[in-house]
Amino acid sequence: MNPLTSPLLTDLYQLTMLHAYHVQKMEDTAVFELFVRRLPPHRNFMMAAGLQQALDFLEDMRFGADELAWVGECGLFPRGFAHYLADLRYTGDVDAMPEGTIFFPDEPILRVAAPLPQAQLVESRLLNLINFESMVATKAARSVLAAPGKQLVEFGLRRAHGAEAAMLAARASRIAGFAGTSNVLAAPCYGIPVFGTMAHSFIEAHDDEMAAFEHFAGAYPRGTVLLIDTYDTESAARRLAAQGAEWQRRGLRFGGVRLDSGDLGALSTSVRRILDDGGLRHVIIFASGNLDEYRIAALLGAGAPIDGFGIGTSLVASSDAPSLDAVYKLQEYAGKPRRKRSVGKATWPGRKQVLRHYDAQGRFHHDDIAVEGEPAAGEPLLAPVMRGGKRIAAQETLEAMCSRAARQLGLLPERLKSLEPAGDPYPVAISPGLRALAAAVDEAGR
Amino acid sequence: MNPLTSPLLTDLYQLTMLHAYHVQKMEDTAVFELFVRRLPPHRNFMMAAGLQQALDFLEDMRFGADELAWVGECGLFPRGFAHYLADLRYTGDVDAMPEGTIFFPDEPILRVAAPLPQAQLVESRLLNLINFESMVATKAARSVLAAPGKQLVEFGLRRAHGAEAAMLAARASRIAGFAGTSNVLAAPCYGIPVFGTMAHSFIEAHDDEMAAFEHFAGAYPRGTVLLIDTYDTESAARRLAAQGAEWQRRGLRFGGVRLDSGDLGALSTSVRRILDDGGLRHVIIFASGNLDEYRIAALLGAGAPIDGFGIGTSLVASSDAPSLDAVYKLQEYAGKPRRKRSVGKATWPGRKQVLRHYDAQGRFHHDDIAVEGEPAAGEPLLAPVMRGGKRIAAQETLEAMCSRAARQLGLLPERLKSLEPAGDPYPVAISPGLRALAAAVDEAGR
Repeated sequence: MNPLTSPLLTDLYQLTMLHAYHVQKMEDTAVFELFVRRLPPHRNFMMAAGLQQALDFLEDMRFGADELAWVGECGLFPRGFAHYLADLRYTGDVDAMPEGTIFFPDEPILRVAAPLPQAQLVESRLLNLINFESMVATKAARSVLAAPGKQLVEFGLRRAHGAEAAMLAARASRIAGFAGTSNVLAAPCYGIPVFGTMAHSFIEAHDDEMAAFEHFAGAYPRGTVLLIDTYDTESAARRLAAQGAEWQRRGLRFGGVRLDSGDLGALSTSVRRILDDGGLRHVIIFASGNLDEYRIAALLGAGAPIDGFGIGTSLVASSDAPSLDAVYKLQEYAGKPRRKRSVGKATWPGRKQVLRHYDAQGRFHHDDIAVEGEPAAGEPLLAPVMRGGKRIAAQETLEAMCSRAARQLGLLPERLKSLEPAGDPYPVAISPGLRALAAAVDEAGR
Repeated sequence: MNPLTSPLLTDLYQLTMLHAYHVQKMEDTAVFELFVRRLPPHRNFMMAAGLQQALDFLEDMRFGADELAWVGECGLFPRGFAHYLADLRYTGDVDAMPEGTIFFPDEPILRVAAPLPQAQLVESRLLNLINFESMVATKAARSVLAAPGKQLVEFGLRRAHGAEAAMLAARASRIAGFAGTSNVLAAPCYGIPVFGTMAHSFIEAHDDEMAAFEHFAGAYPRGTVLLIDTYDTESAARRLAAQGAEWQRRGLRFGGVRLDSGDLGALSTSVRRILDDGGLRHVIIFASGNLDEYRIAALLGAGAPIDGFGIGTSLVASSDAPSLDAVYKLQEYAGKPRRKRSVGKATWPGRKQVLRHYDAQGRFHHDDIAVEGEPAAGEPLLAPVMRGGKRIAAQETLEAMCSRAARQLGLLPERLKSLEPAGDPYPVAISPGLRALAAAVDEAGR
């Protein structure tokens, strides 16, 4: 059973509910919406990602022979239940915000409308995919805002939570505006540019640091990036600068140096001077090592001459806000709007649309959440993407998502580009139609 | 290409170094050790997990035809490089602490000894697996310590970082002492018990809460757990209690109720009273909703009559310490000990062993880190697990790992069982032999 595609990658209660619905013949259309209740700490906005993986999952969802055998024998369900599951496919509709869209709390970013058992079963995996990718895209967008024009590279594979997290983190940060990733597999799978240099172990495996540099440059005649902080950063830079003419004679080249430890501000300044004095103005400085958008903003704010940054742990773990609590809530069943009224967890009922309004300069001004079809102005953000279990358009390219994200980040009001919460958060209004609907649902529920 | 097994799930620099080593014919045995430099915030210890997945990866590692085709055409390497990779297997040795072992900073938990290119290539995935599983096992162990005798269930699938994270989180928390998981796929794949009830949407899909309870109990005649907080927790409990005789007559049963919102301390107390007054003493109370070990300790400390806890986001994201920064460092190459001397990142050279010492009561007293083979007392924690690329023993069962973890948690000094750092951390000493080796390496490097 492949965890990446198995419908058994779900919470047991989805199956127990599915079974109970089947027994009760409750198979009318259910509408679920996926949204985030509140901004994570330090955030002024969120960025949607993960839709393509979600649609792949829905389109391909089926129980395989080994999965059906397990369901039949696990003792949790009557044996006949496996027969029902054998024919189960996702046959419903999906409307969603395209990937790279900036969104705010309470705004549905994805809506499922499907027979209740199907719509319920897919909840866990949809949340699993979209929570993670949107969390990383949001985190990555903050570094993009903090380091305009710099080359940002996702370095998180070794701290990502398993293989799929590593892949999806490379993808989500690329959508948000990263130049690429260190994860090789992201190139053949997603067409994302990959970046890499050398590790300290390469230097240490040699008896001499300069010999290591020469071997590496020799293996990459078109130029490479050398890691210069294994022993003493400045003396490594000085030795490289001194070798300029000799290397040129031997056809050895390097296009950059990487700093991975110590005081990156001071070291980048001194290394820049050493390189420039040695006639190596074209050599870029790339920095890594426990970086995040806060440290990058501080380094650049202090004038550190750093041209690119590798960001790992803090990005893939979204360290300052390590989870995105998107939820997937029933808003309508059998044509009737529904809402949850639990303390602190109440939801807005019905099928909804998000409408974005722009100011005179073309920047985001405010959003409305309205009942779908309610006469309302503004740009609708949710669009149909799947009907009857099939995508209704070709898959969007990653480049199109990157462009959307870049355009939307450019249209954010200045106060929302800050790394700390704006005193004046982005306004999201509930439309009169939606308020009336909620009141009617509450009235009917009394 | 399958991210779960592809050798291209690696950082590009592993491949560029591998290529440079190949060009230079640097293929002598390299020894790398995997360890954590310092305790994560709030932690007094760590728990090792992920070894089985790491060994699977090493045993099965090979480049497939599509991967080789990509390497040949990507433009990053000479075409002949793919031929070399086609024959590449992992042929080295591994020594490791068994899963469920408690460990401390600087202690190697896994050692690889293999031809340099192989040992380098596997770094990214070994760290990816062991960092995550050990982070979750460590986090889960804290809840086990905070809630002795309670039923703990991993509920994190929807917030886990993708499919593999969901699977490995279920596994790692089971090793640490959880009763099971909500993730169905963990049952067929790992034999982990699965738990599940119903969601709020099940209640909301019905026009009446009591009808929803009856339908669900009807579908599960052997008893189930009912979620009672969708509208009003206490009134749901009262209606269930009032139905006792009627349900019995109709053969409907439930063994527990779940509370997922509101003031869990106050609600569990009032619900317990309502159930007991209604003759439902056997019905357990299960709590969930943004729980972690701190909230659980506070609830139990205040006497909340809760029998089990579902723990999701905080567990799989290890929210209070959202990354474990294990590193994988070259300690020896071609028989010569090596060390990194970067500021703040220096390592102890050579092949090492961890030796645990116990006090008169049989509890952990202190550990020594010694050079392998150095005459030293104490229980050695690293054991051989792979020789020549093959496992040397049958895979350990998850039950054996659970038992080890439970036994070791029981042997922790009391001060280390606290959820906050002990003023007096666990002592880990560097042996005289290891200090002498480090001095000799530094001397030779001058």
